Amino acid sequence: MSVPHSIRTWLTERLGVRYPIIQAPMAGGPTTAELVAAVGNAGALGSLGLAYAEPAAMRAQVEAVRALTPAPIHINLFVENAPAPPSTSQMRAALAALEPMYAALGIAAPRQTDAPFAPDLDAQVQAAIALRPAVLSTHFRQLTAGTIAELRARNILVAACATNLAEARHVESLGVDFIIAQGAEAGGHRGTFIGAAEDSMIGTMALVRTLVRECSLPVVAAGGIMDGAGLAAALALGACAVQMGTAFLPVEESGASEAHKQALFERTDAGTTITRAFSGRPARGIRNAFIERAATEHFPLLPFPIQNKATAPLRAAAAKQGNADFLSLWAGQGYTLARRMRAADLVRTLAEEYDEASQALLRAMRG
Amino acid sequence: MSVPHSIRTWLTERLGVRYPIIQAPMAGGPTTAELVAAVGNAGALGSLGLAYAEPAAMRAQVEAVRALTPAPIHINLFVENAPAPPSTSQMRAALAALEPMYAALGIAAPRQTDAPFAPDLDAQVQAAIALRPAVLSTHFRQLTAGTIAELRARNILVAACATNLAEARHVESLGVDFIIAQGAEAGGHRGTFIGAAEDSMIGTMALVRTLVRECSLPVVAAGGIMDGAGLAAALALGACAVQMGTAFLPVEESGASEAHKQALFERTDAGTTITRAFSGRPARGIRNAFIERAATEHFPLLPFPIQNKATAPLRAAAAKQGNADFLSLWAGQGYTLARRMRAADLVRTLAEEYDEASQALLRAMRG
Repeated sequence: MSVPHSIRTWLTERLGVRYPIIQAPMAGGPTTAELVAAVGNAGALGSLGLAYAEPAAMRAQVEAVRALTPAPIHINLFVENAPAPPSTSQMRAALAALEPMYAALGIAAPRQTDAPFAPDLDAQVQAAIALRPAVLSTHFRQLTAGTIAELRARNILVAACATNLAEARHVESLGVDFIIAQGAEAGGHRGTFIGAAEDSMIGTMALVRTLVRECSLPVVAAGGIMDGAGLAAALALGACAVQMGTAFLPVEESGASEAHKQALFERTDAGTTITRAFSGRPARGIRNAFIERAATEHFPLLPFPIQNKATAPLRAAAAKQGNADFLSLWAGQGYTLARRMRAADLVRTLAEEYDEASQALLRAMRG
Repeated sequence: MSVPHSIRTWLTERLGVRYPIIQAPMAGGPTTAELVAAVGNAGALGSLGLAYAEPAAMRAQVEAVRALTPAPIHINLFVENAPAPPSTSQMRAALAALEPMYAALGIAAPRQTDAPFAPDLDAQVQAAIALRPAVLSTHFRQLTAGTIAELRARNILVAACATNLAEARHVESLGVDFIIAQGAEAGGHRGTFIGAAEDSMIGTMALVRTLVRECSLPVVAAGGIMDGAGLAAALALGACAVQMGTAFLPVEESGASEAHKQALFERTDAGTTITRAFSGRPARGIRNAFIERAATEHFPLLPFPIQNKATAPLRAAAAKQGNADFLSLWAGQGYTLARRMRAADLVRTLAEEYDEASQALLRAMRG
């Protein structure tokens, strides 16, 4: 086995990076400046999950990364319509359902959850334009064609998530540079925006190959890719890169809570499921007491991102107490293959495993 | 591009076939002797779906293949406990729900559905032992360790389907030779036997890599693999072969109904879903009127295989009339990538595309 100096694809050539590996922009903690910089310095594309960050925080985080690396940066935002404000009784019912969970952690549940529930998207986009990341990607809904053109005119590559062919064709028509194909295996929030999320649970193998063969834009593969064999598989399907979240969650520089990291190694029999109970939107995580209870007791839920704000103190307290039962343990279906190492070691290992897998494919052939 | 003479893995060496490609044993019509023989003569492993076949029919089908090819044959059986006989009122309710569907095709619904609902498994296994196929695989539940040992003693390779890690470990403990990892993308019946089927919808990318890394047996990848790029991806993940159903459905020698074949090309926007309405067991097929109506009207269903027998005349009439609305359009999530060609051309094309994908992986590396 050897470590290739580079693995070249459309994306690596456009960005001037060595490996077609994107560390996924996991919003809400994991993507510290140290992680993003270590990934960039190792030759992959580091990403900041800035969905929940106000413009000032966006600037601070990007600057913190830039102090540590000259490598290109990818930032990700959530594009979502503001939800209809819940009625007082809806709000009360949702918070009442959460009360026993808060009580289990010894803290009081919030009496209500107030606006603002999320940063202003226009302000985030303006901040992004000023920050000039190498790549800006969006999750959930889409930016307008005009905003996408404005970003591209400033030399920012624009990417959009798709979970089915109709979405891929839609973002193609909006003028994005490439598509992030989110297979059903992927951890965290489902990006579905055409049709119901449960109708777009298409496995990475089928989704990536379908988009590669039926769309004209480059496709990044996401979901269930945990090692260099997965990287080789994705590139064999015609992807121009992989986006890996769960594999980077437990690395040393990751800001994920220690309880979240440990769950990847200790809760190996639990499996993952899709839940709306943490945020109001469907997302994949390791099954735990919170998810099971929300499902069996049919918790009334607030719309995203209000439910997310309503559970935020619960998740923060659970992280602090090291209690994984009440944490959103976002993880993809391949999570039992995660490894604890430094980010740079993971990137190097992925490249080495890619080399091994590719050589084996070729060796298998005769004549 | 060139066509490699062979692609060697553990499975090809054990069987003496040229390509690590299994044409899936689709029960109920598609696997004609002509298809299985053409696949075998082209260097892949042809399979007979004999789940619904009585011993005499099993013998006739195997002999028909052997008259056309000396290639090894794979046969597949369903292992399922006999269901509790439904009450008269359950039977009436299930058949009453089907009446309007039968009426839409201009035929009378059966008044009742009588035993036997499925061939006797012991008799099928004895027939299989006498027929000495190269491979015997099972779906749903498992043969006993004793029966598996008996088959292996007669030089029959035994394979079992797994949709999650617990199942893979279980079949490993029973002593099978290899595991068929059925990813969530796969068309037709879900093989889940530990836990609920809806809890084991693990994408092929994650499932195959997990079983390869966590089990000691060779793993065949199934689900969402539609071309030689998919074959290369699966082998990059460490699989010893792929099992492809949907890709072989529309080939010339396939016995699938013409309406089923056409649906793969004409119903490209419909997508697939999991339904129990055709057979009583969860299976993936292209969405159509039957599936939608059974879901929205909450059809009362009989257990597998009684529901299967109750809908058999409906499906037969729909196939005869070319009406895809009432057919079980079993298909995997990658079905829009299916191609109409002869079976031998498909096998050769897969090998050629494998070569192309593998070479590209290697060319991408520098240093």
